[in-house]
Amino acid sequence: MANSQINVAIIGASGYTGADAVRLLAAHPRARIAALTGNAHAGKPLAEIFPQFASVDAPPLCRVEEVDWQNIDAAICGLPHSTAQDVIADIPEHVRIIDMSADFRLRDVQVYQEWYGRSHDAPDLLGGAVYGLSEHYRAQIADARLVACPGCYPTAALTLLIPLVKAGLIETSDLIIDAKSGVSGAGRSLKEQNLFAEVAEAMHAYGVGAHRHAPEIEQEVSLAAGHSVMVNFTPHLVPMNRGEYLSVYAKAANGAGAQDMRICLEEVYRDAPFVRLARAGLAPATRHVRGSNICELAAFDDRLPGRVILFSALDNLVKGSSGQAVQNMNIMFGFDETDGLEQQPLYP
Amino acid sequence: MANSQINVAIIGASGYTGADAVRLLAAHPRARIAALTGNAHAGKPLAEIFPQFASVDAPPLCRVEEVDWQNIDAAICGLPHSTAQDVIADIPEHVRIIDMSADFRLRDVQVYQEWYGRSHDAPDLLGGAVYGLSEHYRAQIADARLVACPGCYPTAALTLLIPLVKAGLIETSDLIIDAKSGVSGAGRSLKEQNLFAEVAEAMHAYGVGAHRHAPEIEQEVSLAAGHSVMVNFTPHLVPMNRGEYLSVYAKAANGAGAQDMRICLEEVYRDAPFVRLARAGLAPATRHVRGSNICELAAFDDRLPGRVILFSALDNLVKGSSGQAVQNMNIMFGFDETDGLEQQPLYP
Amino acid sequence: MANSQINVAIIGASGYTGADAVRLLAAHPRARIAALTGNAHAGKPLAEIFPQFASVDAPPLCRVEEVDWQNIDAAICGLPHSTAQDVIADIPEHVRIIDMSADFRLRDVQVYQEWYGRSHDAPDLLGGAVYGLSEHYRAQIADARLVACPGCYPTAALTLLIPLVKAGLIETSDLIIDAKSGVSGAGRSLKEQNLFAEVAEAMHAYGVGAHRHAPEIEQEVSLAAGHSVMVNFTPHLVPMNRGEYLSVYAKAANGAGAQDMRICLEEVYRDAPFVRLARAGLAPATRHVRGSNICELAAFDDRLPGRVILFSALDNLVKGSSGQAVQNMNIMFGFDETDGLEQQPLYP
Amino acid sequence: MANSQINVAIIGASGYTGADAVRLLAAHPRARIAALTGNAHAGKPLAEIFPQFASVDAPPLCRVEEVDWQNIDAAICGLPHSTAQDVIADIPEHVRIIDMSADFRLRDVQVYQEWYGRSHDAPDLLGGAVYGLSEHYRAQIADARLVACPGCYPTAALTLLIPLVKAGLIETSDLIIDAKSGVSGAGRSLKEQNLFAEVAEAMHAYGVGAHRHAPEIEQEVSLAAGHSVMVNFTPHLVPMNRGEYLSVYAKAANGAGAQDMRICLEEVYRDAPFVRLARAGLAPATRHVRGSNICELAAFDDRLPGRVILFSALDNLVKGSSGQAVQNMNIMFGFDETDGLEQQPLYP
Repeated sequence: MANSQINVAIIGASGYTGADAVRLLAAHPRARIAALTGNAHAGKPLAEIFPQFASVDAPPLCRVEEVDWQNIDAAICGLPHSTAQDVIADIPEHVRIIDMSADFRLRDVQVYQEWYGRSHDAPDLLGGAVYGLSEHYRAQIADARLVACPGCYPTAALTLLIPLVKAGLIETSDLIIDAKSGVSGAGRSLKEQNLFAEVAEAMHAYGVGAHRHAPEIEQEVSLAAGHSVMVNFTPHLVPMNRGEYLSVYAKAANGAGAQDMRICLEEVYRDAPFVRLARAGLAPATRHVRGSNICELAAFDDRLPGRVILFSALDNLVKGSSGQAVQNMNIMFGFDETDGLEQQPLYP
Repeated sequence: MANSQINVAIIGASGYTGADAVRLLAAHPRARIAALTGNAHAGKPLAEIFPQFASVDAPPLCRVEEVDWQNIDAAICGLPHSTAQDVIADIPEHVRIIDMSADFRLRDVQVYQEWYGRSHDAPDLLGGAVYGLSEHYRAQIADARLVACPGCYPTAALTLLIPLVKAGLIETSDLIIDAKSGVSGAGRSLKEQNLFAEVAEAMHAYGVGAHRHAPEIEQEVSLAAGHSVMVNFTPHLVPMNRGEYLSVYAKAANGAGAQDMRICLEEVYRDAPFVRLARAGLAPATRHVRGSNICELAAFDDRLPGRVILFSALDNLVKGSSGQAVQNMNIMFGFDETDGLEQQPLYP
Repeated sequence: MANSQINVAIIGASGYTGADAVRLLAAHPRARIAALTGNAHAGKPLAEIFPQFASVDAPPLCRVEEVDWQNIDAAICGLPHSTAQDVIADIPEHVRIIDMSADFRLRDVQVYQEWYGRSHDAPDLLGGAVYGLSEHYRAQIADARLVACPGCYPTAALTLLIPLVKAGLIETSDLIIDAKSGVSGAGRSLKEQNLFAEVAEAMHAYGVGAHRHAPEIEQEVSLAAGHSVMVNFTPHLVPMNRGEYLSVYAKAANGAGAQDMRICLEEVYRDAPFVRLARAGLAPATRHVRGSNICELAAFDDRLPGRVILFSALDNLVKGSSGQAVQNMNIMFGFDETDGLEQQPLYP
Repeated sequence: MANSQINVAIIGASGYTGADAVRLLAAHPRARIAALTGNAHAGKPLAEIFPQFASVDAPPLCRVEEVDWQNIDAAICGLPHSTAQDVIADIPEHVRIIDMSADFRLRDVQVYQEWYGRSHDAPDLLGGAVYGLSEHYRAQIADARLVACPGCYPTAALTLLIPLVKAGLIETSDLIIDAKSGVSGAGRSLKEQNLFAEVAEAMHAYGVGAHRHAPEIEQEVSLAAGHSVMVNFTPHLVPMNRGEYLSVYAKAANGAGAQDMRICLEEVYRDAPFVRLARAGLAPATRHVRGSNICELAAFDDRLPGRVILFSALDNLVKGSSGQAVQNMNIMFGFDETDGLEQQPLYP
């Protein structure tokens, strides 16, 4: 068995997405954790940063410069944007990279510059990157050297919308995406707004009209539609650790109704192990996907004639980040798509 | 001072809205709690049902039939719908009634029947009831014998929408109301979906296309618009005790923008002690109104041209129920509108 | 591989411990779920009771009388106490049983009667039952037909205390066990005290001096000590779904200190895959074991001379219930002890 | 009425204790907020730091050097320890000071130095400071210029223990104080351990054997006992904003039982508006005191003969800090002790 395992480096292992990559790879039958980087914590054992992993067999953290790349087949990168592009540019060519940052998601350097307020340092790499929405870019991912995993919100939005837009079942004008997220999506950074006493027993909208996941959603919806689409995307912070919930309000197209949309989604995802429809008549719930790589969808007719209400729920750290990264790694290396991802949701 | 106090009966004091009425009246300078009913708990002291009120001077609970109405000036009714209409019909004429149930909110008996699945037992009372949205029906409330306090969601929605609709600043077609609520809105009833282990660390939509607050919102928006309006109203359950948050997606009318809407709301609520706009550029947050009778509003321009994003936040048990009930009582009896309602929000 | 799998019935699959047994068995390499019972839900698919399991391959729920026992090798029983003993008495002899109820934990029928207020219906079965504290009764479990999994609190307490008592490192007089638990330990039953609005943002002690896990702890500590021991056991409810945390205050014996106790625990659990000490100087934390079968221990010297402070943390639904049940099943059937239990903790 | 109001400066108004002082003073009949300091936020309106206070009539924040002390009668100080002693030393003599920091609680400069790792800069002020446990030092507080409000844990512990120790009802050897606190006690500082994703759905002990509230408790218990007492004090962090819960395990003295202790506590606190016993047979609960200045106590006989289990619950930001500060201010200025503190607990 050991022969058939690949060696994986987790770059930026001290954040929450890095930690969830460790969690998933620790039980992966075809991959072993061969390197862990975290510059601020170089030299420390993983269990000092994340005591929950005291039983995981993994090397201590090191600086990214110290990784022995000869030994590495794949890198899963959990660095913040901007840092990611610089670090990834220096990784040797033979290493295949799954990046969880935002640096290679936007195909257009101009759009990147506009939303991230800086020029891109690795436009060539960007040109070759594949957008890692697993269910929709499987073939390209299989051949890619660099896969840019979608943001958590875009994963939830696009898994729901791409099939419906492609099938012409919804209008692309005035798409309203009301999104709610748990707090782990904000990472482990020390910001006042992430303190328990600010978040618990409370909720609010944030980034109104200005969240960086909007252009990413628009990029992919536009590709699906065949024309440029702009969407409303309004995120809210909800007092829970994990979970993301999107409520999408759309005009039906061509006389379609929710039932047509359910049929469409069923067909598109028939063989997708991680996308499913909620039971008929039920809205999805984040507790039904917590800790798993599952994205759950639903479609309802609105009382407003000609309109529908669509839902998408996932765990932002799994299908919204590290889980999809592992799924993409599985696709890139020809493993079973579910390897290391078979955990059932943890509820309660 | 005692002479100038009124005697208030709280009918249905063992639920959460009844409890919050006790909390507010306990410190009210012009009202004293003269009777408390709770049929399942008759004979027990209040502190047995709600130990937090061990220091409150109040009579033990009794059956509603046992209330000595001669002694009572006002009744605040926290019973469930259906029960409320029957009990209220038997209260002597001299008692002025503030009802927190849904029984007298819908002006049209047919609509009531359609949404509540039963005929109305007290259509005459319904005819004379005043819809108790304090800021918009102050004059009628002052003269009313029976005030029907709006539902929590309708209070949040209408406080935001009525001024904008009346001023012709938003279109009334395709109004999307995405609502999020804490769990106390579901009351103290023993339902599996209200268990901690079902709600904590989780969220989901419910009552999609079928929530009984929709016709109530539509009734009042239609009155404001001068024509029949239908809205999308989609509630979600969020893991917190108190708090309600509405995100409304609307088309601007007549070339208006968010700034026009802020000015309109500022003007309409200039003298309203409990309605305020969030600071410029900030979305409201439920933690900024928790435990208080405040409703906080905001308006943003959408990235989608010609559209706006509107927000409304309140505490569902206070402004969304018992606080507005006390506010209405204050108006009915000519007290200061803020009597008993001057608590600042409790945060963290 | 299929040949080597056993068929497992989960009896009482609609509660939280039953659900967690499903979660763990769904990924178990040597066991398949062959029957699920839940009398109130007979005929319904599992996904109707627990939508998170929509992707699990399992039969619909049936009444316990409908189970085809011929086909079953093992039964994991998640019924409430009292019910469990009656149902288990009727299961055919060839089926090996892992019971998660309290019915077969107390070795003395008199003690059972005293604490549970009823006589025991299956004293013969009780006589043959093995107390399923995996790490301490491995040999007996391997040979048992009926294993009584310890309660969640006793598992945490005994994993910590048995080695120290056996080694004579702590006094058995005046043992103080201050216990804190998440809410899922109370199960899915409809009780007011389990409502979200009663539990969230709050904590309190319960069952002071009267919790049924006290005699269970005392039974096993007495066995370890070789004489009768009585303990203080005071449980508290904490607003979280999963997790149990015990702080034990004890007098050191024979001049021992915390360091001696750590060495003792390290040695006793050297080969135990699911028991570990927290990093030196750190108290355990429930987030470091959440969702896993791990029990984490620690020992500190008290400032009070001659005293120590001991800690034990676990996930009440896993090591405290279903996980230990699966671990016991593994031991009974000669599987790897970690089969189906290799999930890393889910944090955040 | 205005004539009879005093002018209060809140020093350090941008933390949580400062904010709760604002909340309480905003509705105080005899005090007005005349100055607010917060050096990092000087020049900003209060509502920018705490948007919940948008409706409060208060001056903008200024630097402490900018306060016009001539105008000020009292200062409530919410600064961190060390900073507090330096700032307070510079406040003019005519201003009476209620300090919520730890700087003036320990009567012995040596003990301060040992636990806080620095020498004390204002030993003279320390000599004149009164320990502000309102119910036990009322007379001295009334005359004091500088009152040192007890820590939150010591308030809960001492309110429970001082009467019992003075009455000789419990032994002072081997007192075990297992304490649990919500997160707001850690203040608004940016530390990883205070992030929502670290705290929610989790709990753990901290500061084992080394928490700075231990010497404070010991100082006052020793005074009550008339001899030097050392205690076990073990705090735990629980996922809630507000609330503190102490479970104390003690040996009864002189044949006393829990009933004697309840009678003692009833008598001592007969006229204390903010201390009460829980209903007979019930443990206190933090939700029954949340947001209020109430401390709730209880006493139970242990199953271990000759031992008792005692409980104390309060809101750490109110009775544990700002509420007791306002209570002390009331005593110092001859106001009603309950002025500004009559809010009932907020639950749910």
